[in-house]
Amino acid sequence: MDVHEFPPAWKRGFYEAIARRRDIRSFLPDAIPDATLARVLQAANQAASVGFSQPWNFVLVRDRARREALHAHVTEERLKGAERFEGARKDTYLSLKLEGILDAPLNVCITCDRERFGPAVLGRNTILDADLYSVVTAVQNFWLAARVEGLGVGWVSILRQEWLADFLALPDHVVPVAYLCVGYVEHFPEEPTLKTKGWLPKLPLADLVFEDRWGAPPAMGAALDLHSVLEGLE
Amino acid sequence: MDVHEFPPAWKRGFYEAIARRRDIRSFLPDAIPDATLARVLQAANQAASVGFSQPWNFVLVRDRARREALHAHVTEERLKGAERFEGARKDTYLSLKLEGILDAPLNVCITCDRERFGPAVLGRNTILDADLYSVVTAVQNFWLAARVEGLGVGWVSILRQEWLADFLALPDHVVPVAYLCVGYVEHFPEEPTLKTKGWLPKLPLADLVFEDRWGAPPAMGAALDLHSVLEGLE
Repeated sequence: MDVHEFPPAWKRGFYEAIARRRDIRSFLPDAIPDATLARVLQAANQAASVGFSQPWNFVLVRDRARREALHAHVTEERLKGAERFEGARKDTYLSLKLEGILDAPLNVCITCDRERFGPAVLGRNTILDADLYSVVTAVQNFWLAARVEGLGVGWVSILRQEWLADFLALPDHVVPVAYLCVGYVEHFPEEPTLKTKGWLPKLPLADLVFEDRWGAPPAMGAALDLHSVLEGLE
Repeated sequence: MDVHEFPPAWKRGFYEAIARRRDIRSFLPDAIPDATLARVLQAANQAASVGFSQPWNFVLVRDRARREALHAHVTEERLKGAERFEGARKDTYLSLKLEGILDAPLNVCITCDRERFGPAVLGRNTILDADLYSVVTAVQNFWLAARVEGLGVGWVSILRQEWLADFLALPDHVVPVAYLCVGYVEHFPEEPTLKTKGWLPKLPLADLVFEDRWGAPPAMGAALDLHSVLEGLE
């Protein structure tokens, strides 16, 4: 079926996923059915990749003792991270729940095999990190697909990559890109938590678009004044 | 509306976008309506970002003379890239159309401001490239939203980042992450072009998933034997 622009019902479903995806840090303990998880993983496996190199792998971590070891590492790094903020901002940082490693029934590390189909990968001669970027497109597919299935995802970035590589026994040519907590949730927040808590404001699209060169206003101007991605859909 | 698992019609729309997204290198010259482009850009602006730092900007390039200058640069790098392959593989490389810079009516560079809301960004104390990864989640949102609107996108990775930064007059603290060609297409290929042309095979999901540590088979086993992300949906 040669579909170009999607029919309205399909568009709606897609844009609802974009609008409702959140970074989640609190999870319910309920198990995730294998068929559901398989769909989410397959969505990740259908991501873009430089030269079709598909450099991603998925390491599932469910074992409680292993998640406890990881949680201890992240707690240590979180306290070190607090030293970079001062006064009220430091208090806010320390009051935020930044991960759900133990709440969530499933953690998933998405890795990048830097030698997959290599050493020469089509399109990776000038931008050597194009393989890492490919893995991140898989992460975003995973995240959105999880949301569609009613699963929350939180990306834990407060950990040392070398520590994690060792923890997961990754070969030297494989690096961890994302460590995700995955599970059902009590509630998907209406807005990003760091916005609601006053950590940072949401940037309006109109402030982010230039034309031809940095700082130059785009010809499309007023068309950028939309607030929701669902605006203009029926 | 507190939606958790999406209703079937929404799910379908989302998974169709995942399944039908392609890396496109041939475009029709037809102009893109501002309202359509604004929705695609807003989908990108609703991506995930470390510490809600939203480090992305979008530099639109439509001017023909500017696209010609960029095309000349990419052509040069493409020929250099060919030197990394030999024999029949080199011939195949040179026969592939790798970009649509001049065909497409619109090019978009998505950049990363490495100092946005910084220097201290929540969650960016251990993984310093978390801001670049955030920008790539915006790229994937852009790519999928474009597909939903019937627009093809091709990521051009055969160019030098320093050259591009200079070309777009980016400040020192801003780096280009993705250079995209965007436009309507005659046809969305059924399968990824590099698969159809025999460049590389598609990797089956079951080969990519481990549990607890690299190389260890996952408990979910057979559930991973699904070929399409649409399998199991009505």
